Amino acid sequence: MSRSHNFSAGPAALPVSVLEQLGPASIEFGDTRAGIMEISHRSKAFDAVIASAQDRLRRLMGIPDDYVILLLQGGASLQFWMSALNLVGDGGAVDFLDTGTWSSNAIKEARRIADVRVAWSGKEGGYRAVPHAGGYTVRDNARYLHYTSNNTIYGTQFHALPATDTRLVADLSSDICSRPVDVARHELIYAGAQKNLGPSGVTAVILSPWALEQSAVVGASHPGGLPSMLDYGLMAKKDSMFNTPNTFGIFVLERVLAWLEDQGGVHAIAHLNERKAGMLYEELDRSAFWQPHAEPMSRSQMNVTWRIHDPALESVFLHEATAAGLMALKGHRSVGGIRASLYNAVGCDSVEALVGFMKDFESRKG
Amino acid sequence: MSRSHNFSAGPAALPVSVLEQLGPASIEFGDTRAGIMEISHRSKAFDAVIASAQDRLRRLMGIPDDYVILLLQGGASLQFWMSALNLVGDGGAVDFLDTGTWSSNAIKEARRIADVRVAWSGKEGGYRAVPHAGGYTVRDNARYLHYTSNNTIYGTQFHALPATDTRLVADLSSDICSRPVDVARHELIYAGAQKNLGPSGVTAVILSPWALEQSAVVGASHPGGLPSMLDYGLMAKKDSMFNTPNTFGIFVLERVLAWLEDQGGVHAIAHLNERKAGMLYEELDRSAFWQPHAEPMSRSQMNVTWRIHDPALESVFLHEATAAGLMALKGHRSVGGIRASLYNAVGCDSVEALVGFMKDFESRKG
Repeated sequence: MSRSHNFSAGPAALPVSVLEQLGPASIEFGDTRAGIMEISHRSKAFDAVIASAQDRLRRLMGIPDDYVILLLQGGASLQFWMSALNLVGDGGAVDFLDTGTWSSNAIKEARRIADVRVAWSGKEGGYRAVPHAGGYTVRDNARYLHYTSNNTIYGTQFHALPATDTRLVADLSSDICSRPVDVARHELIYAGAQKNLGPSGVTAVILSPWALEQSAVVGASHPGGLPSMLDYGLMAKKDSMFNTPNTFGIFVLERVLAWLEDQGGVHAIAHLNERKAGMLYEELDRSAFWQPHAEPMSRSQMNVTWRIHDPALESVFLHEATAAGLMALKGHRSVGGIRASLYNAVGCDSVEALVGFMKDFESRKG
Repeated sequence: MSRSHNFSAGPAALPVSVLEQLGPASIEFGDTRAGIMEISHRSKAFDAVIASAQDRLRRLMGIPDDYVILLLQGGASLQFWMSALNLVGDGGAVDFLDTGTWSSNAIKEARRIADVRVAWSGKEGGYRAVPHAGGYTVRDNARYLHYTSNNTIYGTQFHALPATDTRLVADLSSDICSRPVDVARHELIYAGAQKNLGPSGVTAVILSPWALEQSAVVGASHPGGLPSMLDYGLMAKKDSMFNTPNTFGIFVLERVLAWLEDQGGVHAIAHLNERKAGMLYEELDRSAFWQPHAEPMSRSQMNVTWRIHDPALESVFLHEATAAGLMALKGHRSVGGIRASLYNAVGCDSVEALVGFMKDFESRKG
C-alpha cells in the first residue's frame, strides 16, 4: 500500500473500508445485476440508499423528526444564494458573521436578494478569530443570523453557538458530523459533502419547519413560484429527486455515514478529533519555530493552519513532507503557509506521522 | 458474471471496461497516492482529468475552438432555468418546440424569465412525432429557438436540425455523442451526463461566443451581476471550478469519452446505434402484437417505446424479461408501456437478447 497520509482540505481523505466497497458496487450493486451508477434513481434499490443516507444522518446529528433532509447538487456556493432566495427572497433583513472567505462569499450572494448587514467581521484581524459572545449585536428585524461554523481556509471554528436569540442559519461544510451540534437551534444547515460526508457533488441541506414555510411564503410572492431546481419546498416534496440526483455521490455518502455509525457516531468521533487536533496544536505551541495562525480560543479542530518562523522554509517543508508520504499540506492559495485538515477519516496515525515529521524537520532546520 | 442486459433510461449502462477502472482508481489514482475522490480539485492530477474530459468532448463532437465547454452540476433541469436566465434574462423573446415532458419543463422554467412562445407542440398528438420542416414558424425577434433533440419518455428524436435561420439552443441530454451534431449551428447545447456520457451529477454545457457575450450583457443588467453559481461567464472564467465540482463524476465521464474514442468516435458509434435501433424497430414492425409509439419518421434511436396489443400482457412481459436478465424495460411512469433505452454502452448482444426474448414471448402469448 503506497497511500499517503492525506491532509487535503477537500475533496479529502475517505475511510479505506468505504473505498474498498466502491469497486465491487460499481460492477454489481446488491442484487440489482448492474453497477450502482447504472441503476435508475427511481429504482427500489436506490430508494433504499437515499432513505438510508437520510436516516443515518438524522440519527448521527440528532435531527428532529419534523426537519427535512435534502441531498442536492451545487455545493455550499449554490446554497449561499439559494438559502437567501428561499428564506428572504421577499426582501427581508438578514445578519451575517463574517469569519472568512466562505462567509464573505455567502454575504456577497445574499446581498443580491436580501437586506444584508454584517454584524461582525474578522477581516481586519486577518480572520484569526471568531467573535466572542457579546462581541456583536443582531438587528431585531433580522430574519436570521448566518454563520460559518468552521473556516477551512483560516483554520478557525466556533466552539459555541452564536450568542443570540435570533434564528440561526449555518454553513457546516467543513465540520458537519465532526462533533455534536444542536440542530434544533437552527432553521437551516447546509454542507458540501466533500470534507466529512463523502465525495464532492452532493450537498446536505437540513430544513426546519419554519424554513420550509418561509420558502412557501417567498415562492408565493414570485409569479409562477421559485425556479424549480432552487425551490426548497419542491425539493422537499420530491424528496431530493425532482430530477436525477448525484446517485453515486449519495451512495458513497451513505457508506461514509455507515462507517461513522460503526465508529460510535458523532460523540465518539468528536473525542478522536479533539485528540488529533490536540496533538498537532501541542506541537505548534511547543516551539517558536512554528507560528499558528488562529487565536487559541478560535482554533479549528478540522483545519489547522500555521506558518514557519522563516517563511523560506515552508516550501522545503511541503516538499519534504510530500516525499515522506504526508500529502496536501499546502495552505490555501489565498493565504499561503501550511494547513493540515484533520477530518473524520484522517487517522491518529496520520497526525502522529505529521508531528513526528515536524519534530524531525525542526531538529534539522531549526 | 450475473450482470443483466441494461435498458435503463438513465442513470444507464456504462462500459464495463470503464467500470473496472473505478475500483482501483478509488483506492489509488495514478501517482497521487490517494483515491480519485480524495484529491483536491485544484491538484495537477485533477486538472489533467478535467482538461482531458474537455479535450475529448471537443474532438468527439467537433466543438469549435472558440466554444467553451463547462462541466457543471444540477442536470438539464437546472439548465432549463439557467439558460433562460443567462441568454434572455433581460426580457428577450424565445421560441420553443414542445416535443415532450422535458421540453414542457424547459418552457415552464423559461417562462419565469423570458417572453416565451411555443412555436409547435406535439402534445395533442400524444408526442408521437417531432415537427416537420415548415410545420411551424419562429418569431423574427426570437433570440433563439429551443428544442429537445431526443425525447427520452416518448421515444422520438429529431433527425435533422430545426428548419430555421434563428439561433439554436438544444437539450441533448439523451442523445449527445450518439451521432454527429453540427455544434457550430448551436449557441448553447446542454446535456445531463447520465445517459451517454457517464454517471448522474455532471452536466455538460457547450457555449458559443454569442452565448457568453449574451450572458455578460444580461449580467450587466442585474445589480451585482448574476448569482455566481448560475453565471455562465463566471463558470467559463473559472473553467467550471468556481467551487468544487463533482470530481468523481467528471473522472468517470473522462473515462467514458476515452472509451468512446477507442470505439472509433461518434461516427462509428452512430453506425452501431443505427444498427441496434434498426434491429428492434424491425421486430416491432414485424407483428401487430407490438404497437410502437412514435411515428416512423420521428423514431428515436436512443429510446424505443411501445405497447403490447393486449395491455394486460405488459406486466407479464416486464416480469419475464427481468427474470431473463433484461432489466429496466418499464416505460416511464407518466406513459406506461415498454421502453428500451439503447445508449452507446448498450451492446448489440443486449439488443439481440431482447429481440430473441420478444419473439419467444410472442410465440407463447400471441
